[in-house]
Amino acid sequence: MRASVLAIGDELLSGKTTNTNATWISQKLMVVGCDVVRHLVVSDDEIEIIESLNTLFNYKIDLIICTGGLGPTDDDITRKAIFNFFNSDSHFDNDYWEYLQNKFLSIGYKIPKSNKSQAIIPSNGKVFSNPTGSARGLLFEKNNITLMALPGVPSEMQLMIKETVIPWVSKKSKKQNYSINIRTTGVPESVLFEKINNNNNLDEIKIGYYPSLLGVDIRINGSNKKSIKLFEKMIISNVSEYIYTIGEESLEELVVKKMLNSNITISTAESCTGGLIGHRITQVPGSSSIYQGGVVSYSNKSKLTQLNINSNTLKKHGAVSKEVALEMAVNIRTIFDSNIGLSVTGISGPGGGSLDKPVGLVYVAYCDHNISKVEKFNFHSNRQSNKFLTSQSALYLILKNLIKNEK
Amino acid sequence: MRASVLAIGDELLSGKTTNTNATWISQKLMVVGCDVVRHLVVSDDEIEIIESLNTLFNYKIDLIICTGGLGPTDDDITRKAIFNFFNSDSHFDNDYWEYLQNKFLSIGYKIPKSNKSQAIIPSNGKVFSNPTGSARGLLFEKNNITLMALPGVPSEMQLMIKETVIPWVSKKSKKQNYSINIRTTGVPESVLFEKINNNNNLDEIKIGYYPSLLGVDIRINGSNKKSIKLFEKMIISNVSEYIYTIGEESLEELVVKKMLNSNITISTAESCTGGLIGHRITQVPGSSSIYQGGVVSYSNKSKLTQLNINSNTLKKHGAVSKEVALEMAVNIRTIFDSNIGLSVTGISGPGGGSLDKPVGLVYVAYCDHNISKVEKFNFHSNRQSNKFLTSQSALYLILKNLIKNEK
Repeated sequence: MRASVLAIGDELLSGKTTNTNATWISQKLMVVGCDVVRHLVVSDDEIEIIESLNTLFNYKIDLIICTGGLGPTDDDITRKAIFNFFNSDSHFDNDYWEYLQNKFLSIGYKIPKSNKSQAIIPSNGKVFSNPTGSARGLLFEKNNITLMALPGVPSEMQLMIKETVIPWVSKKSKKQNYSINIRTTGVPESVLFEKINNNNNLDEIKIGYYPSLLGVDIRINGSNKKSIKLFEKMIISNVSEYIYTIGEESLEELVVKKMLNSNITISTAESCTGGLIGHRITQVPGSSSIYQGGVVSYSNKSKLTQLNINSNTLKKHGAVSKEVALEMAVNIRTIFDSNIGLSVTGISGPGGGSLDKPVGLVYVAYCDHNISKVEKFNFHSNRQSNKFLTSQSALYLILKNLIKNEK
Repeated sequence: MRASVLAIGDELLSGKTTNTNATWISQKLMVVGCDVVRHLVVSDDEIEIIESLNTLFNYKIDLIICTGGLGPTDDDITRKAIFNFFNSDSHFDNDYWEYLQNKFLSIGYKIPKSNKSQAIIPSNGKVFSNPTGSARGLLFEKNNITLMALPGVPSEMQLMIKETVIPWVSKKSKKQNYSINIRTTGVPESVLFEKINNNNNLDEIKIGYYPSLLGVDIRINGSNKKSIKLFEKMIISNVSEYIYTIGEESLEELVVKKMLNSNITISTAESCTGGLIGHRITQVPGSSSIYQGGVVSYSNKSKLTQLNINSNTLKKHGAVSKEVALEMAVNIRTIFDSNIGLSVTGISGPGGGSLDKPVGLVYVAYCDHNISKVEKFNFHSNRQSNKFLTSQSALYLILKNLIKNEK
């Protein structure tokens, strides 16, 4: 199956926004056996949209995913352009309009009339659900090509791709694609690449390395399940120490799931991450049962008063030291009466670094009823990246210990 | 002047890499009066490239900026495809080849033969300099459309755009472009749209509404500076209560900057956001001077023990109430001895909601030496969005009070 992603939006063409939607959609479609063969971005202009649809309909593809321009304002004209392209009449969906009115009222607004456009249903197309926004998706078919239009807001679009588009593509796609995703953290792409012996020359599989701030995903794709399994085995044996899961789950999802299963609680003492670790844990539904809370200690004073750090430890070793990290983990566990205490202290930058303790130096400490330990990192990156890398190392340290305790 | 950006590369279509080059190029071209009207991404395939050039040459544009596929390896076939498209013969540039050989030698390598392709000059086109890499740019003209091909490596491409493309466009472009960005929060796009009286019919300007999870940006673009200023004034007078800045800064940047300027400190008591507010504040360099830290209080118990909430208040009104929010803000200010105390408590979902207190109900409280106040919200969204919307409301509440105190 071959697809094109058509993004509609002046903000993309003016360089205000980057078309990360196309990247995300391409990744998801590839996994279910659909190759994306073209990305196209056009402006919020009816003639431009119709012209680009004409071009795409002359092209050897089966699916067009169209994003953006389904909002209620004047510059959102995707709906009108698509209806015209498909010569579609429309009717007004009173039930949906009533639903939208109530939704707006519940957040304290009288719904503007402009939202009425979002309650229109095409006569020769379909609508599909948008669980988190007001603009539903549109689906049209013509000359064996299916067009699905979705809003451009990433969170809304992503949920609709997961819930509607992917199941639809999986069903239609003839080429059965198998895919395994191996998630790693704490190792550069090039080192992984070198460690993974690629001489096996396995047929019919494609290996992709997808680095992000939080690690590198290795995706094995192909039609031959056996080859994929062989390659997976080889990767696991070569780089096992960096792999945190086979699948799509995030580190925080894995950590929370394991803690919920074992009824284990945790509290956090964060210095350089400023609350990011608590934020990531609490992104996971159900985390309130295992996360007791924590202290964000961004000053020496609060380390003394809120975390009861020994003033001698602080004086002798400084706030960014393995000794303070360990005390923070041990004390936060006591203060919050949790099974696990987790702490981080480090220098995020850009200021605050020295020759001895450079920007990017971080200590992560873990403590439970049995052990306490600390790990040292040197991330050498910028403020934002150092914070994310620290939170990732902290979550990975928790996961490794949860797995060890299971054994 | 109208331009298209054509990016060539399988890594873009598979979702491995995001096409940030197109964003960057669009920004730079807009400033010198060149509108980018289409982005296109195609694979490293000769037929695909020629097909897309045929499409673009039938389109009303003056310039095509083409990126990627000029490297020396097998999968870099942009050069060959473009030469074929323009029916161009070529000759070998011995001087450049000698230059490349020496360049490689100087970093300790014998140049691979595959680099020879980078020393080829088209018979009916031109080459232009790549100051930091080995792949020079290509320039062709046909039917009043100019094509410039550049390497895809961002650092090389950017320097070539600055040194060659921008001066070339500036000379050819007749109009100058201006742009103003107005950032709002706490109001739906459609409500903003309705409140902004668009009947002025100002010429030569374009208004765009760009919604995201954190608010709606309104961008005014055009060649007439006076019209832009007039429209800006009208927007400000109509929706001032939702505008947090004219420009590009984030709420956390504005808040931290104002606090640094006035030497004001803050601490946070977060329940439903789990640390997100602290995380956002500490994303801003220099925030350690104003952010004392905070408590993430994710359980009733920690509200009693860590935030000293009165057990009667908690019993009578529940953890998600204006009373508890206020006590949290007042107490965290005392505990951390900061100028401002900020708190949030709410129900993120998906669980924990009731008829009285539904998912998305949030209280945000603010306290300084002078006043304490609380705001109630009903976000009705999913867990992740509710958390972000809460953090945004909290930062906006701080900003509004900082501005008020300045007066």
